[in-house]
Amino acid sequence: MAPTDSPATPRHLAVDLGERSYPILIGSGLLGEGSPLADYLAGRQALVVTNETVAPLFGDATTRALTDASLDTVVLPDGERYKELTTLDQVYDRLLADAFDRSCTLIALGGGVVGDMAGFAAATYQRGVAYIQVPTTLLAMVDSSVGGKTGVNHARGKNMIGAFHQPRCVIADPDLLATLPDRELRAGIAEVIKYGLLGDYAFFAWLEQNMAALLARDPATLAEVIERSCRNKAAIVAADEREAGQRALLNLGHTFAHAIETATGYSSWLHGEAVAAGLCMAGHTSWQCGWLSDNDRARIDSLIAAAGLPTAPPALEPQRWRELMGIDKKAKDGRIRLILLRALGDAVVTEDFPDEALAATLNGF
Amino acid sequence: MAPTDSPATPRHLAVDLGERSYPILIGSGLLGEGSPLADYLAGRQALVVTNETVAPLFGDATTRALTDASLDTVVLPDGERYKELTTLDQVYDRLLADAFDRSCTLIALGGGVVGDMAGFAAATYQRGVAYIQVPTTLLAMVDSSVGGKTGVNHARGKNMIGAFHQPRCVIADPDLLATLPDRELRAGIAEVIKYGLLGDYAFFAWLEQNMAALLARDPATLAEVIERSCRNKAAIVAADEREAGQRALLNLGHTFAHAIETATGYSSWLHGEAVAAGLCMAGHTSWQCGWLSDNDRARIDSLIAAAGLPTAPPALEPQRWRELMGIDKKAKDGRIRLILLRALGDAVVTEDFPDEALAATLNGF
Repeated sequence: MAPTDSPATPRHLAVDLGERSYPILIGSGLLGEGSPLADYLAGRQALVVTNETVAPLFGDATTRALTDASLDTVVLPDGERYKELTTLDQVYDRLLADAFDRSCTLIALGGGVVGDMAGFAAATYQRGVAYIQVPTTLLAMVDSSVGGKTGVNHARGKNMIGAFHQPRCVIADPDLLATLPDRELRAGIAEVIKYGLLGDYAFFAWLEQNMAALLARDPATLAEVIERSCRNKAAIVAADEREAGQRALLNLGHTFAHAIETATGYSSWLHGEAVAAGLCMAGHTSWQCGWLSDNDRARIDSLIAAAGLPTAPPALEPQRWRELMGIDKKAKDGRIRLILLRALGDAVVTEDFPDEALAATLNGF
Repeated sequence: MAPTDSPATPRHLAVDLGERSYPILIGSGLLGEGSPLADYLAGRQALVVTNETVAPLFGDATTRALTDASLDTVVLPDGERYKELTTLDQVYDRLLADAFDRSCTLIALGGGVVGDMAGFAAATYQRGVAYIQVPTTLLAMVDSSVGGKTGVNHARGKNMIGAFHQPRCVIADPDLLATLPDRELRAGIAEVIKYGLLGDYAFFAWLEQNMAALLARDPATLAEVIERSCRNKAAIVAADEREAGQRALLNLGHTFAHAIETATGYSSWLHGEAVAAGLCMAGHTSWQCGWLSDNDRARIDSLIAAAGLPTAPPALEPQRWRELMGIDKKAKDGRIRLILLRALGDAVVTEDFPDEALAATLNGF
């Protein structure tokens, strides 16, 4: 990325969590010279955690934003399949080789995988150090960088090892999305649509009108989408930081999505693609329950399709679906709890639905 | 262990941490039938995490205490050298194979290594589940089971990966110490002496009078030592849960001890033995600073020696000492912060000491 002039005043949201509160800054030119990044370091030592795809694109701009820091960079392999304990050891090893102490700060420069791993490394290095999220994908900007969920996958299940650990700041610069592959952009849009569906009907309807501009990466549309998505997420996280209740709504579509990802080995489906299919499945089950009209259900599938995302999952045996969903984090004493839709823009966490409705969805539609 | 009658009313201490408060129960017969263990489960699912040495001794008694639970046991290899991420994966794997959900409880049945690993597994499984400490060594009863420090070692440093995660309860049954090897008992006494030295002079003087009874495992003496040590630790933890200040006093002797353990590969020295030598080194540096009299310093060495513990470290080059101490968690921006003694029973965290005093200690004495 070429050096930029000092950024214009960014949009500024607060995630309100008492002593763990932090800002989300959204704006063009937030990385590079004049970046506010350095203002959020806990001490002088900083480790940039990134991957082999992102490092050549934005590594220099990040370094220039931190000229006064005692800085090092660790470059991880790129991909969800590397989001595991053994990859994390590369981060610990660099921190210790550099003699980084408890006042150090990790900078997560990348997408959701980098953010989750850097955040978990920060949560667990010397029992907890600071970190900053600098998301480089739409999915990370609107979802995974906000809220403090960190962790890695286990061969038996996604995100099964992790911690809640809030960043000191999230810096979302839409300029960084210029080089994002179309497929990755669309994957992020799945999470954007999720916010509309679960609690912001007006945003859902706005997306129906503005999908073409979003796919064309219109700058104003991107900034609006990031801000509105983060505002929805920040409100839910502030009300329920550790997912005792309402935060589970953010998992709309995700029980299905995690099953898809586990069944396919975290490789052929992007997370956002699995979420897209999962949203359609949640819509289908809700429609089977009689909670959504034919038209409501069709609007979900149409918006997902308009974003170029899959509206149906891969074919799996119903019993395999249930096995994969049974060990999901949302399972409690063997019963399956799902997030379903009472209406467009009104999601509920519930165990109270007829099994036939779920069965119809798992049998394919 | 044979079944016991219902235990007499145990001694009861509280670790006062607001919504994370929990009791320490101390008394004979707390494991087995009539045990209060089951009262502290978060849900029905419980995984006993223990090791190959402890399982044959106390595994059955633990199982009998939890007859109503959905129970499984994972038996880890025994030893500090197994306290690492790869061993932890055995715990995650069992939890996931059993489809344990967020309402499960881990039972740490063992010494400090088992407690640290089970606690860290609980801190990180599905971003945090409940756990209970059932310590089986003196060291674990008086120190590592209380206060919520959990974690594993890294090849480059001890306890470098971890989390603060408080247990729901600590159950300390002195009967379990009957089979503890003498060397392990003595290692625990090092931490007991530490409490006297750092803030409880009366306890230090009491230990000078009662060391023979303690080494003979007199039941009343053991119970008194466990209660008084836990009382000291609980007060410090309650005042400073995450070691922003005063809690660092609990590391008296530990910067030296960690260097000894790292240099010797966590194998030939027990943690408590390294702490014993570390206490004598802290005493020596404090004496070099002019803060302890000749007699004070001699009393430290005498009490450590009376417990059958080492009063001096292995020979290392001074530069090697400094390297090993430099990456310790207590290092901040390159300066070495030590816990030293202003008097017997009065420890301070300080960077303000003449380097010559430390140099004299590192050169051997």
